[in-house]
Parts: sequence; C-alpha cells; structure tokens
Amino acid sequence: MNRREFLVGAGCIAAAAGCRSASGARRAAGSRAKFRLGMAGYTYKDYKTDAMLDEMQKLDVHNLCVKAFHLPLTATDAEIAEFKAKCAAHGVVPYALGPIDMYTDEDAEKAFAFAKRFGAKLIVGLPATKGKTPVWTDRVANYELCKTISALCDRYDIRFAIHNHGPDMPQCFPTAESIVEAVKDLSPRMGICLDIAHEYRSFKDPVASIRKYGEKIYDFHLKNLTTDATRMPDIAVPLPRGFLDLRAIVAALEEVGYDGCCSIEYEAAYDNNTVPLAECVGYWKGITGE
Amino acid sequence: MNRREFLVGAGCIAAAAGCRSASGARRAAGSRAKFRLGMAGYTYKDYKTDAMLDEMQKLDVHNLCVKAFHLPLTATDAEIAEFKAKCAAHGVVPYALGPIDMYTDEDAEKAFAFAKRFGAKLIVGLPATKGKTPVWTDRVANYELCKTISALCDRYDIRFAIHNHGPDMPQCFPTAESIVEAVKDLSPRMGICLDIAHEYRSFKDPVASIRKYGEKIYDFHLKNLTTDATRMPDIAVPLPRGFLDLRAIVAALEEVGYDGCCSIEYEAAYDNNTVPLAECVGYWKGITGE
Repeated sequence: MNRREFLVGAGCIAAAAGCRSASGARRAAGSRAKFRLGMAGYTYKDYKTDAMLDEMQKLDVHNLCVKAFHLPLTATDAEIAEFKAKCAAHGVVPYALGPIDMYTDEDAEKAFAFAKRFGAKLIVGLPATKGKTPVWTDRVANYELCKTISALCDRYDIRFAIHNHGPDMPQCFPTAESIVEAVKDLSPRMGICLDIAHEYRSFKDPVASIRKYGEKIYDFHLKNLTTDATRMPDIAVPLPRGFLDLRAIVAALEEVGYDGCCSIEYEAAYDNNTVPLAECVGYWKGITGE
Repeated sequence: MNRREFLVGAGCIAAAAGCRSASGARRAAGSRAKFRLGMAGYTYKDYKTDAMLDEMQKLDVHNLCVKAFHLPLTATDAEIAEFKAKCAAHGVVPYALGPIDMYTDEDAEKAFAFAKRFGAKLIVGLPATKGKTPVWTDRVANYELCKTISALCDRYDIRFAIHNHGPDMPQCFPTAESIVEAVKDLSPRMGICLDIAHEYRSFKDPVASIRKYGEKIYDFHLKNLTTDATRMPDIAVPLPRGFLDLRAIVAALEEVGYDGCCSIEYEAAYDNNTVPLAECVGYWKGITGE
C-alpha cells in the first residue's frame, strides 16, 4: 500500500486527485517579489569572500554589490573569473561594484577599466576631494571629478551611482538632492545610490526623495535605524525593528517604477550578522510580496 | 559645537526643528501587528527553558505555548512561579499550555488542575485512545474523553483546543473538520488549534478551513512546507520559502476576526534554529503589518 492508498483508505483524502480543493492557500505560480533583494558588500566587510557567499546562499539572497575588500581593483582577469565562478556556484549575481571612493581622474579611470574587465554595468561611488584633515567625514564633493566620471560613463556605457552619505559627511553628497544637483548637466548614466537611513538622518523624507528623484535612483541601500535620527554613529537595527516605515518606502519605489536591486547594508555585528540578516531578509520578502 | 549646531552649520538640516519634513517614511505611531506572534514550545524541544527564553527575546517574540518538557505537569507552585518569573524577565507571556496528549479522564483532570494552578486560560491537546501498536500514528480520536474535557472546560473556565495532526494520524483528528464534528455538541470552550501545514497535507485548503471554522479556532500553528504535500514526514521550511501562501492565510484570519496567537512551530533544526526562525519572524512581521 503506497502513501496515497493509505491516505485514501483512511478516508483522509479523496480518491481522485482532481478532488483536491482549489487551494486558496497555495502560492500562485509565477508570483515573485517586486524588487531584487541584494547585499551591499559592506555588510560583509569582516567576512572573506567564500564565507560571504555561503552566508548569502543560506539566506537566499542572490545579488551582490561587490566591495573592493572582496575583490580588489587590482584583480587579474583570472582572479575576476574565479570570483565570478564562486558567485555563480552560490547562485549570486555580482550586479554592481562599490561603493568605490575616488579622488582623482586616475582613480576614476582605474575603476571604469576594472568595471569593464569585470563586466559590470553599474558602479557605486563617491567622487571626493580629501578634506583638511585625514578624517573621512571631512571629505568634500568633487564636481570636477564628476565631469570626468560622466565622460567615462558614456565612453564605457557604464552607469555611476553616487552614494549619499548623510550628515556624517555634510560636504560630500549628504543627500539625494545634492547628488541630483551635481549630475543634472552630466551624462544621464549618472545617478543616485539612495541610502534611506542616511537620507533620513539628513532630515530628508526618504519617501519624498524617492518620489522626487525616482528616475535617477540606480542603486538602493536598504537599512533601518533607531528613533534618534541625529544619532552618530548611525545604529543599525533589523529591518522590522526600526523607525523607518519600509512599507511606505516600498510603495514609493513601486510608484516610480524602480527596477534596480534593493541591497541590505547592515552596519552592525559585522562579524556575526547571520541572525539579524535573516530577520531582515524575511521581513523584506514579507513586505515586497515574495 | 554640538551635533545639531554642526549639522545646521553645514547646511545639512534646517535650524528649526519644526522644519523637518512631515515624514512619510516615519513609522506611524501606534501601528501594530494584526496578530500576536508566538512560539509553539515544540519548536524548542531541544532547548532548555532558559535557552529557549533567551532565543525568544533575541528574536523579539513574546508569546509562548508551554510544552511539558519546559514545565512538566508535576511542577510545584514554586516551580511554576519560577518559570513565570523567567518568562516575564524575558518579556514572554506563556499564553497557553500544550499540546498535551490525553488518554484517560485522569490525564484530563490532571491537565486542567495544572492549568488552573498555572493560571492558563487555554490548553492545546489531543484526546486519544492508544492504537493497537505503540506507534504514535496509530492513535484514535477519543470522543468519550472529549465529553470529560468539555465538562472540565466549563468547570474551570478554561478553553481546550484540539490540535489537528494531519494525515500522519488519520484516525485522530487529522483535520479542522474532524475536530468541529467532534466538539459541535460540547462546550463552546472546545475548539481547534489549527495547524495549517497538517491541514494542507490532509488535502484541505487552510484558507477555506479558516473561513469555515474561524470562530472555533482558539490557537494557531504557523509553519510552511515544501511543495510535495504528501511528503512524510513533513519538511519544515522558513515561512517565506514554502508552498503555502501565508498572505492568503493572514487575510482569512483577518476576515474571521481571529484574535489568538499565531505560534511558529518549526519542525526542523531543533538544536540550531535561530537563523531560520529569524527569517520566519521577519517574514511574519512583514506580512502582518508590524
């Protein structure tokens, strides 16, 4: 007696398979999430590449913005190929590179040449001038370098998303608005990597920013933060436990037709973040319809 | 110069606090989840009580259906008080007891007397007769015992939810329907602890069952399962990765005005389930509006 006969015999199920009720509880075929979930490489700054990819596979996350500490810009073609093979073996698509800090034309050219060798179509970065002190928060937006980058975008057919870094770096693209202002006369391939927590910490409403600058958003850093919006440093919390209403964020992204990745940048517990990240991933799937 | 002055000076934020935009991204005050999330004690069958409560606190889950392996029915009043104090210290409400297997009137009386001493208002259980073999799946529904339990419910003012156990135990309340049939002429304090995976595995549509028997559902076991609905044993998967559309389940629970707990019963990785449970918790918060 096989399992089915056993069940039928027990009166538990109808004999004919066709009698199974049309199940409202069954997940609709082809249903999918509204957005591609990803990881910002910075989330794994204390993980080596193999460990990071194992973590992503375990957490069912399939898109990665690659940071230099996982693959340096000096990587050879063979090293790039090995990195991409590892990603593929873990079901991970390295969809972009960065954020990459840039100070000079040479920095920018090196980054674009690397992106071309890598096959990336998107770089996230920060065109800056070093400040009066070596403190990273003293950096200043580098508008001349933006022009160089703009030309490189068009030469390589690669998009460049400037990352807003909030009030910690007030002179260097703190907000989406400051980025749009800087790129408005440059290549359309230049846009924003919107970090919603840094945006909020700059006393901007991320929902309004998404609505206003939606078509210029090329990458997206997903995080949440505690209620004290002025807190420095920013305190990361699992996505469902923070102050920002991520449902409203998702609705705004839908409204503007965002089609990039939404990548979790979890800035805490860098060496042991599996549990909070699992909560983040579950929540994001929950609010985006996966 | 304080932080605020620094930001204002940098032109990053408006000087007047009132200038902060009315933030659409800010979580609405007083927003709360539709349902109380809980844990079925069985999820932690391989954890001792202290470790279980630590896990629940870490995962931000605050309701527990207490299994006997965390607090036996032989516990003294002092042991009960100690258990409840530990729960309180971890922000956990022990909202019910069970599931408790019962075979005789004495078993039932012992359980209700214990529930009264504990202060529980709900017992989850299974009134059964042992089968011809000691195999647990051979048990048979005990309708006479249901009558005893019904009287105990009314005497103690405690509700009793019979747990549907699916096709593994075809003669012992496999489905919600079989439970409703058994209790329809008994105390209104008798109802169902609906296990949606077991219900689905019995070729019943959990959404239809919730709609049909909603007012008799007193407790709820939340899980998901792989696509092979006839698989034995049931394979647990994190909530967002399973076959059941939990959104449809949530909608049905809302429709019928369910006001009990939804408790995760995660039947895998019993000794190391923190990561999948974090994903479950995040997902449930995502789909229930927390």
